[in-house]
Amino acid sequence: MTESQLGPASPTPAALKARQPLRLNGIRLDPAGLFGTWQRRNAEATLPHCVGKLADTGILANMRRVAAGGGTFHGLWFADSDIYKTLEAAAWQLASTPDDEALHRFLDETVELLAAAQEEDGYLNSYFQTDHPEKRFQELLWSHELYCAGHLIQAAVAADRSGAPAGTPLMVVARRLADLLVRRFGPDGTDGVCGHPEIETALVELYRSTGHRPYLHLAQRMVDLRGKGLLPKDQLGPAYYQDHAPVREAEEVTGHVVRQLYLLAGVVDVAVETGDLALLGAAERLWDSAFGSKTYLTGAQGSRHRDEAFGDPYELPPDRAYGETCAAIASFQWNWRMLLATGGHRYADEMERVLYNAIAGATALSGRHFFYSNPLQLRAGHDGSIEDSPSQRLSWYHCPCCPPNLARLFATLHGYLATTDGTGLQVHQYTNTTIHSGQYTVDVSTAYPWDERVTLTVSGGAEPWTLALRVPGWCTDHALTVDGTPVEQAPVDGYLRLTRSWAGGATVQLDLRMPARLVTAHPYVDAVRGCAALTRGPLVYCLEQADLPAGLPLEDVRLDSGAPLRIQTHGPDAPIPVSLVASGTRTRPGAPALYRYDPAGAGEAEPVTLTAIPYFLWGNRAAGPMRVWIPAP
Amino acid sequence: MTESQLGPASPTPAALKARQPLRLNGIRLDPAGLFGTWQRRNAEATLPHCVGKLADTGILANMRRVAAGGGTFHGLWFADSDIYKTLEAAAWQLASTPDDEALHRFLDETVELLAAAQEEDGYLNSYFQTDHPEKRFQELLWSHELYCAGHLIQAAVAADRSGAPAGTPLMVVARRLADLLVRRFGPDGTDGVCGHPEIETALVELYRSTGHRPYLHLAQRMVDLRGKGLLPKDQLGPAYYQDHAPVREAEEVTGHVVRQLYLLAGVVDVAVETGDLALLGAAERLWDSAFGSKTYLTGAQGSRHRDEAFGDPYELPPDRAYGETCAAIASFQWNWRMLLATGGHRYADEMERVLYNAIAGATALSGRHFFYSNPLQLRAGHDGSIEDSPSQRLSWYHCPCCPPNLARLFATLHGYLATTDGTGLQVHQYTNTTIHSGQYTVDVSTAYPWDERVTLTVSGGAEPWTLALRVPGWCTDHALTVDGTPVEQAPVDGYLRLTRSWAGGATVQLDLRMPARLVTAHPYVDAVRGCAALTRGPLVYCLEQADLPAGLPLEDVRLDSGAPLRIQTHGPDAPIPVSLVASGTRTRPGAPALYRYDPAGAGEAEPVTLTAIPYFLWGNRAAGPMRVWIPAP
Repeated sequence: MTESQLGPASPTPAALKARQPLRLNGIRLDPAGLFGTWQRRNAEATLPHCVGKLADTGILANMRRVAAGGGTFHGLWFADSDIYKTLEAAAWQLASTPDDEALHRFLDETVELLAAAQEEDGYLNSYFQTDHPEKRFQELLWSHELYCAGHLIQAAVAADRSGAPAGTPLMVVARRLADLLVRRFGPDGTDGVCGHPEIETALVELYRSTGHRPYLHLAQRMVDLRGKGLLPKDQLGPAYYQDHAPVREAEEVTGHVVRQLYLLAGVVDVAVETGDLALLGAAERLWDSAFGSKTYLTGAQGSRHRDEAFGDPYELPPDRAYGETCAAIASFQWNWRMLLATGGHRYADEMERVLYNAIAGATALSGRHFFYSNPLQLRAGHDGSIEDSPSQRLSWYHCPCCPPNLARLFATLHGYLATTDGTGLQVHQYTNTTIHSGQYTVDVSTAYPWDERVTLTVSGGAEPWTLALRVPGWCTDHALTVDGTPVEQAPVDGYLRLTRSWAGGATVQLDLRMPARLVTAHPYVDAVRGCAALTRGPLVYCLEQADLPAGLPLEDVRLDSGAPLRIQTHGPDAPIPVSLVASGTRTRPGAPALYRYDPAGAGEAEPVTLTAIPYFLWGNRAAGPMRVWIPAP
Repeated sequence: MTESQLGPASPTPAALKARQPLRLNGIRLDPAGLFGTWQRRNAEATLPHCVGKLADTGILANMRRVAAGGGTFHGLWFADSDIYKTLEAAAWQLASTPDDEALHRFLDETVELLAAAQEEDGYLNSYFQTDHPEKRFQELLWSHELYCAGHLIQAAVAADRSGAPAGTPLMVVARRLADLLVRRFGPDGTDGVCGHPEIETALVELYRSTGHRPYLHLAQRMVDLRGKGLLPKDQLGPAYYQDHAPVREAEEVTGHVVRQLYLLAGVVDVAVETGDLALLGAAERLWDSAFGSKTYLTGAQGSRHRDEAFGDPYELPPDRAYGETCAAIASFQWNWRMLLATGGHRYADEMERVLYNAIAGATALSGRHFFYSNPLQLRAGHDGSIEDSPSQRLSWYHCPCCPPNLARLFATLHGYLATTDGTGLQVHQYTNTTIHSGQYTVDVSTAYPWDERVTLTVSGGAEPWTLALRVPGWCTDHALTVDGTPVEQAPVDGYLRLTRSWAGGATVQLDLRMPARLVTAHPYVDAVRGCAALTRGPLVYCLEQADLPAGLPLEDVRLDSGAPLRIQTHGPDAPIPVSLVASGTRTRPGAPALYRYDPAGAGEAEPVTLTAIPYFLWGNRAAGPMRVWIPAP
């Protein structure tokens, strides 16, 4: 592989940025760590599963019909994006496992197919090429043409950066389409924005990989044109498409969550590459809206199944949480960009929260079943018969956007652990890994998040430099030693900073005290009034029916919020490495009236021991009720 | 008008029934009473508004294009149903105001148009006749062809029963279409059910008005064929269409609420006319599901905006309550049929609950603005920019099914007050009215629901007969006198029964003690944990921002559930005749963190006086936060 293995969202040297990502080939995840386990499962199960599904479900066949000269499109009209996201995942994966012949074959054959399907002028979209050539670029509100183009471009950027041989021809295909977009929608073309943002961030990434500024300018233009009513009005309303107000003026995240967050990723990319601090400030303001009143405890976002949308502030129902997997991934990507741009620890905190809970929970232990929506409660008597809210993870969806999105994220997971800046190296996420960056080497050994101890073996650098270690927002107590000598230091802006010469090597030990703790929500979150959630470290826990004594419905459980919580360790290789044990009571609801004038008596309450498991592992046993928020009177 | 003014859902003499409805022309609402006010407002504002909108929004124009020989359809493909529901409302209204020339003209002209648009074989559906003649009856899952036909039939039945001259030609149109349905879907035709139930109840009503048994048999056939998978599978799943299980086997109300409840109205109609006790038992079982765990305190049903659907048991979020107006009307209609079939007081209780709260709240004081969904909470910062969840009532909707549905209900409101049986007369709902039924006359004078006293002047009947007076389920204390003499009697099966000779006339005075009371929900209703609602008599109350001191957000209000409640009377002609006054506190949420490890302190709490208004009157002042369920720690 080449030396230039930049990862996703790598700003140019000229960009406004506080932190610089590391090159992917400098970092290797140890399969003994949780991140390493996830990445390996992704390579061995999720990614081949997605590649297989592209063939089995007819998604690739659409493209083949175009290449063969015609036919009728089958499936969702934006299904090309599933090909591109899988291509992107395969390309990133090849950076870690360059000898994977099957992946190379998939990449090579698919790129050849795309080149054959592409039109003379660069246009490529199998739905419009077969069914509606006359509507090409005519109905951007719903067409997803630029959305699909964006994912193609991201795949090309990934293949190019990972050094896969297919990167060269794929980049040709992507640039031919991008050049068409510049001609069509650039300053000499039509004003237009896509109903589904994605092209913005893709064009900036393409600019980063090619140095061709018209791509950046087109992205900037599309960010600036948004919110000016270019999209026609429909029943979903302009806020659904984030076309109700210019990004610079919007006060709140609104509408379709994935659209909003992909847009914001592009907004940050444009802001940093054009040095536009006002635009970056708009992204920060919208971040406050999103994370101040519209985010679940798991980091999931999207309170409404209808429109897959954000709700009103503090509207966060646990049972009807939509929390789309793609939205969680988009949040991770947006926060990564904010972290690079500003260095703010809160962005790394949110990456951690969403990764360990909403994102990790979307995939089954098998790696071949997935949640699309990620609720925080499954009720007794839940009707899981439609895929909008199934009781267990499904192997594929009518709209299969999430599985390949997971695949591309997990393939690049090592890219998000650490950054550099002029002072040295910053470690943001803790897992078993070896990080090489220039002259610095940091070897991390830990059983995090199951255990609080992180051991870092640090070396390299002729001059003294600063190793910055993030103290997560959830952590209120830590201990730090260097070569066994305690270092008393409070985190500043979320990081502990050790500045010294590491040339001779040193061992840093960071203990992030990880007690089991109860969390409560802001009183405006009506949906979880009178409830508490169990957490430990970055992990949100939940109760599942499977852990309750027979005959005790989860609905009848109350948590004793005054009693101590106990941590039960089963070993890192156990299906559930650490569970939490709490004290509770069993209530008996008594009269079955739905509404009553006389307050329900407390009734007899029997003590009961409650065992909670990490939320991200729910739904891997028998289907049954689950809840994160437990009534705690 | 003729003597045969039967009202909606009037069983034949042979039907299985416990109660018989009265003839509409025997009952007159006094405009001084609340029902009378509503009915007059409907005649003067809502109904003309609907008639005007049919013209202004192009709904009638679709039918005109068919009559004129062709063209392209505009609007929602099932918009013919809005014509028919408005026709039905106009026909019923003419029973009360037979001299309304404008209504006669609307009826005459529209019927003439329908006759002109109808095809030789009886087919009539302006969408399929213009845009897709080749798909006629081919795609019953979504076509709404039988749904529209059902509303046409109901309009014809109404016009026929009310004695309007247009009833004769309209009945000809309806029967020509019904006869086509019998040929097409009867025992000699195809097996088929409509994706949207409605035809079932309509066909039984047509049978009742014509005596033509093939209509009844077709309705029975469609009830029996439902749940056998005749409808193709789609993303909504068969439960959405109530096609997942035969009615006789279904354990739970599911899916699209209006579909489910219209179906159940038809199920009861079929059951009583065919003497099918098992089918009636299935309806009773589904009633237990609906009212045991899937009904809001206001009587509204539908917990999900997505799919306009019932949720899981006890899934009853107040802010995202869908509570479609049409569903509330359907519930009223279904309960009426259950009441007639069984005489069970619980059905009259639910009619009262849903009428005074969910249904009454759907219309603005003006009579010209309406809610489609009826939430029990409007949050601070609510985005009311799309009509799916507006902050105030709108004058019309993209799918305007609700306003004409309200119009047809209010035009027949007097038909639901009382019934007869072999023993005498039963009064179910109390309002200012005069009831003549055969030899009996009951004159009711009351300010109910503002006041607890109901005075009935009773006369008629050569022989002794029984006057039965419903004691509502909410009422735990009553007083009864006859000509000033106290009568000690506990209600039996929900009714007080006075059996005597009324020939000389007597005055009955019933006091239904109506204290202000708090209601709590079953502990499984997670969404309103720790909350209470204010009620008085049949009325649910709510807090509105407009009644709070400046600077006090509704979100910061807590109810002191131990303090006494006060009833404040403003007079029956005041915009809010009776408000409730409660004691509460103002909390200060303190730190704005969305989630926190340390339990939020109680903080300083200032006492505050809370004034609650009837829920059905909300949203008639400035738009702003509202809530029925108030945190009551």
